[in-house]
This record gives sequence, structure tokens and C-alpha cells, in this order.
Amino acid sequence: MGTVERAGDDHTSEVESGEEEEIVGGGELAQHLMKSGVTRTDMLAAISNSIHAEAIAALPPNVRRRIRALRLLQREFVDIESKFYSEVHALECKYEKLYKPLFDKRAQIVNGIYEPTDEECVNPWRDENEEDELARAVQSAAITDGADDNNKPADDNNTAEPPMDPNVKGIPDFWYNIFRNVSMLCEMMQEHDEPILKCLQDIKVQMHDEPIGFTLEFHFAPNEYFTNTVLTKEYSMKCKPDDDSPLDFEGPEIYSCKGCEINWKKGKNVTVKTIKKKQKHKSRGSVRTVTKSVQADSFFNFFNPPTMPEDPNSTLASDIQALLTADFEIGHYIRERVVSRAVLLYTGEGLDDDDDDEYEEEEDSYSDEDSGTEEVSDAED
Amino acid sequence: MGTVERAGDDHTSEVESGEEEEIVGGGELAQHLMKSGVTRTDMLAAISNSIHAEAIAALPPNVRRRIRALRLLQREFVDIESKFYSEVHALECKYEKLYKPLFDKRAQIVNGIYEPTDEECVNPWRDENEEDELARAVQSAAITDGADDNNKPADDNNTAEPPMDPNVKGIPDFWYNIFRNVSMLCEMMQEHDEPILKCLQDIKVQMHDEPIGFTLEFHFAPNEYFTNTVLTKEYSMKCKPDDDSPLDFEGPEIYSCKGCEINWKKGKNVTVKTIKKKQKHKSRGSVRTVTKSVQADSFFNFFNPPTMPEDPNSTLASDIQALLTADFEIGHYIRERVVSRAVLLYTGEGLDDDDDDEYEEEEDSYSDEDSGTEEVSDAED
Repeated sequence: MGTVERAGDDHTSEVESGEEEEIVGGGELAQHLMKSGVTRTDMLAAISNSIHAEAIAALPPNVRRRIRALRLLQREFVDIESKFYSEVHALECKYEKLYKPLFDKRAQIVNGIYEPTDEECVNPWRDENEEDELARAVQSAAITDGADDNNKPADDNNTAEPPMDPNVKGIPDFWYNIFRNVSMLCEMMQEHDEPILKCLQDIKVQMHDEPIGFTLEFHFAPNEYFTNTVLTKEYSMKCKPDDDSPLDFEGPEIYSCKGCEINWKKGKNVTVKTIKKKQKHKSRGSVRTVTKSVQADSFFNFFNPPTMPEDPNSTLASDIQALLTADFEIGHYIRERVVSRAVLLYTGEGLDDDDDDEYEEEEDSYSDEDSGTEEVSDAED
Repeated sequence: MGTVERAGDDHTSEVESGEEEEIVGGGELAQHLMKSGVTRTDMLAAISNSIHAEAIAALPPNVRRRIRALRLLQREFVDIESKFYSEVHALECKYEKLYKPLFDKRAQIVNGIYEPTDEECVNPWRDENEEDELARAVQSAAITDGADDNNKPADDNNTAEPPMDPNVKGIPDFWYNIFRNVSMLCEMMQEHDEPILKCLQDIKVQMHDEPIGFTLEFHFAPNEYFTNTVLTKEYSMKCKPDDDSPLDFEGPEIYSCKGCEINWKKGKNVTVKTIKKKQKHKSRGSVRTVTKSVQADSFFNFFNPPTMPEDPNSTLASDIQALLTADFEIGHYIRERVVSRAVLLYTGEGLDDDDDDEYEEEEDSYSDEDSGTEEVSDAED
């Protein structure tokens, strides 16, 4: 993927991997260590590298001393390597500026602000006639379909769509179609998000230097859903080895993200839904209906990421960590693939096999979509 | 993984993906196009983007014209992006020089040429006592094992190994142990390769500029297997968009590799094995035994990669392409992970979960290893 940052790796904690190893083959070593009066913490730390740790402990002291020297050299390596990644980030900032005029022109064409000249529409490396021929073929096929209606099922989606106004401006639904084509985005998009995402006019990337990172800007046309014109998601990355475990460093890591407040117009917030609960009175047996608001599935939850709790070792923290890891991957993907290759995701040329498979499935799953209001029966007794 | 090059992607050819799409959902479109007199080649090319191509063909001509303009902008983007990757490669060359003194010192310590000073063995970010405690624990556990022999199984691998000579030089079997720990390398290593890989003293990376790429150098101690002191594997990468399909460019791709000749000593070539075939005479019924040499599984086949056949569309070519793709991944992995993080792969700290799981499995599969001589019965009748 030609990518330089790693999108949020989840490092298994030492204790966790230790417990795993215990099952695989560390059991006996654990017993040895228990007998020898080593504390449980020492033991878990020791087992975490399983057979390796034991093998190294069994080496003569002078060999273990040399391994320590190599680890110190590795520390020096990692310090130099982190400078490499800083330089790569500086290069990325430099190139983002070079890409900007192209992306700005793209946005102007997509939104009908600029009409490209004939010269700007020549693709020397692909036969244009091919494309026109396909267009004619599809058109004449559509006409044939209409003629022998009795042979064709009535719900043929491909030809049932109304023809698009030939005087249309720009490229309608450009970003919305990208959301439909890319499985990762399509999975996040709910039916009630679709009309909003049809108003998405551009996605821009702004790089930052300190801390290194980037902001994704989602630019919207004025719409009936919210008053914002831009929604933002900011990612910060760490490019230095951690003081506690410097040798774990493997390149820049996204370590935090920040959303933005969406100023929803009255009754238009798709990220909440109303649940009706029926409550039965304990003694009287009468039933009352209570409505309450809960979070609803929506792409727009992307702008309200969870925050890490105080205690990083709680169960809640590991759940949130998993959510943030997925969030980081999405942000990284949008920056690396979606923004830089938008037209290819729109035409389908730049889709992974995975994306294309998903396309079909997603179409099906739409019909099962819930209506946004749930009936939950929760009688007390 | 903080990597900038992509190790050999296998791009599905247009025709192949077209046929796949036909199954998924392009069947009807194919029929339409057949009816409309479009040739099969046009059709396959058209279907290759499945629903997307049809949807785009159905757009008004002025919208399709604007999409062409975006594709031309994308071409400009890709040209700039390829310069970015060239600059990243130049950075990698620069940093390789900065890493060199560290790697050279590592090799000197590993091979007992240089003994580190006390100062060079201090790891401020990790408790040394912990390590010593573990060592003592393992030692006393081993002694306990010996004392109550009747309670322990006799074939306890962990304690059965003879204690290592405390006057040993350097770090014995450093690279060999990395091969054992890293699943990708361990899978390539055969039992007959092991004594040879115990002579491996260093793996170095040399970067090149034109064409951009790198050479892996495997440095060996004088040994009884071959006369080479260095075995090399050279990878060349392409960092420019392809003229025929420029929009497919996604960063540097390894596109060719070159091995080296190994000067095996007599009877020591582990990459060939002798097969005995029994042949029965058609009419007389007498049986004779024929011996012939065939390629044997060995890590050292890595230095003799297959070459692409003339016709890149043949079945053979796609098989070889798959082999080369795997080979590219290995070369890339050795450069990115093994050379730069050797000590962490030796101690087990830098292993992926995958590597650790694999470790156990590999140990088992060794016992099934064939002896290098097969009995094949191939009677004619």
C-alpha cells in the first residue's frame, strides 16, 4: 500500500501474551519458577517470551552480557530510525502541498464550479472510443429491455433508474458513490446517512507538524441536517520510541484522535434514535410507555470517537482501545486511499477485490435496515 | 509495519477479474452487450469493472467527460507521487549509511571479534536483576529436575540440552536461532540446512540507486558445504507508473530478483536429492533400479529464484509469478524486519504472535522430515 505510518497497532500487553504462552508450552517452566520462589509478576514477565526467555536465561553470563550490548545498539538504531520517520513525515507535508492544486481542481470539477477544457479531458493511455462504445451498448441494451418486457423481470435495478438530466452540473453524488463502493465506508453508512452524504462536496487532508499528524476535513454543501460546512477529525501521531519500552518502536503510531461537534438542526440528528419501552407496574399491573434517546448507528458517529478512560488496564479500556484501533484504520485509509485516489474508487478501478465483493452484499443488507425506531419490551416484574 | 515498498503485488489481469465478475453479477450485462454486437474483448474489458462500468456508461456524456478530466488529474498525481517515493528511497539510502556502524558493531559482538565494555552493556530502561533472577530460577529448576528424576519425563527437551561452555566466543548460533524463531524463515529451513545456517555470521543490506533496489548479503564462516563466503540476492524495484496503466501505480514494486551461484563442495549440495526409481521391464518382468537427481527442499533454493518465461500470459507464468511474489515478500521481510531488528527476533521480543505460534508447530514437523532419499516405485505395464 506504499504506506509509511502504521494505523493503530494493538500491542498485546506482556501479561496477556504470557497467559497465552502458558497454554502453548510455558506450563512446565511456570511450575519450575513457582518452585524456585520467583514471584508471580516476575514469572509472567519471564514466560511472556516463553521458550525464548528460558533459552536465554540458560546461556552463560558472558553471552547474556553480549545480548545486553546488542539491545543497547538496538536502542541506538531505533533512535536513528525515528528520525527517518520524521523526515518521511516532512516529505509527506511537502508533497501534500504539491498535490493540493490537483485536489482543488478536482473539487471544482466535481462540484460544477469549473468545466474542464477539451485538452484536460484527453486520456492518451486509454481508448476513449471503447468507453463510448460501452455507453452505446448499455443504452441500446436498455432499449431492448423495454421492448420485450415480458421476458425480463420488472424489478431490473440496472435499467429501472430514471435517466439523468443531461444538463447536470459537475459529477453528482461523487463522494456518496465512493462511500457506496468502498466496503469500509459502506459498512459505516446507514440508510438515514445517505441523503446527508449526498451533500458531501470534498474530503481534504491537512498535515500538521507538532505533534505530527493530520486532519481530515469533510466539506458539505448547505443542507437541512446541520449548520456546519466542514466536519473535522484530527489524528495525532507519535514518532518517538516510548521511554519504557523503546525497542517496541516500529514507526509512527496514531495515538489519539479528536472529532468535532455537529450542530444538528432540530429533529435531524441521525446519531440518536428514540426507543419506546413498555413498563409494567409491579403491583398494579398497569403498563406505561417510556421513550428514551440512545445512540443510533451512523457514519456521523465517526466525529464523536470515544475517549480513553483514566485506568488504561480496565476492561472498558480494552474495549475502547479496540474501537479506537478500528477508527485509526479508517482515518488512515481515508487519507491514504480515498483522498488520493478518489476518482478510481468512484469508477471502480481502484477498488480491492474485497471492496467489489462487499458491494454486492451491502446492496442486500440495505433491505434489512431498521427504521430507526425500535420497540423494546422491558416489563418489570 | 512502517514500510514504504510493497512486496510484489499480484495484479489480477483484466480478463480474469472480468470472468469473476460475470459470476457475481455481470451476467445480465454480458448478455446485453452480446446482443448489441460488442466484441468479446470489449465486453470483458467492460465487465471487468462490473456494475461500476455500466453505471458510468449510463451517465450523460458531459459527466463522463468530467470523469476523464479527473482521471487525467489522477495521472498528474501519480507522477508527483512517484517522485515522493523516489525521495523516500533516497532517505532510506541515507539512513542505511547511518545504521551501518551499529550493524557492523553487532556483527563483531555476535562473532566474538569485539567484547563490549561494561558501559556498552547497561540497559537503563530494563531491570537487569530481573534477568539474572530468571537465570538463577531456570538453573535451580534444572537442578531440581535432575534430583527427582522419577517424577519427570525423561525426554524433557528444555533441560536435556548440555550446558554451554562458559568460555564461548560471541553469541553462538545467533542467526540460526533467528531462523528458528521467525516462522517465515523456519518454514524454508530444512533439517539438512541447519548445520549450514549455524555458519551464518551476518546478513547485510546494500541499497542501490539505479535501478532502485537492494541486495541482501548472507555472510558465512568458512565451512564444509560451499566455498562462497557471501551469498547474495538482489532485488530491483520500479518506482514509476506503468505507461500502459499509469493509474494502477501505488508505490515502488519489486519487479525482479537475481540470485547467486553457490559453489557446493563435492557431495554437499543440499538443494538436490537422489531418487531411486524401480522400473519393471514391459515383457520380461525384470526390475531395475534407476537413480536420478531432483531439486530438494532447502532454504538455499532462495539463491536460485525461477525466471519469468517469455510469454507472460501462460499458465506456467502465473505459477512462477506466485513463487516470485512469495520470494519478494521474504526478501522484503528480511530487509525490513530481520536485519534491522535481529536481536529482538533472537530474544523473542520482536516476534509476531504468528511467529510464536508457528514455533511450536515447526518443532513437530521436523520429526516427519524425509531423509533426502526417496523410494519411488514406478513400474511400467
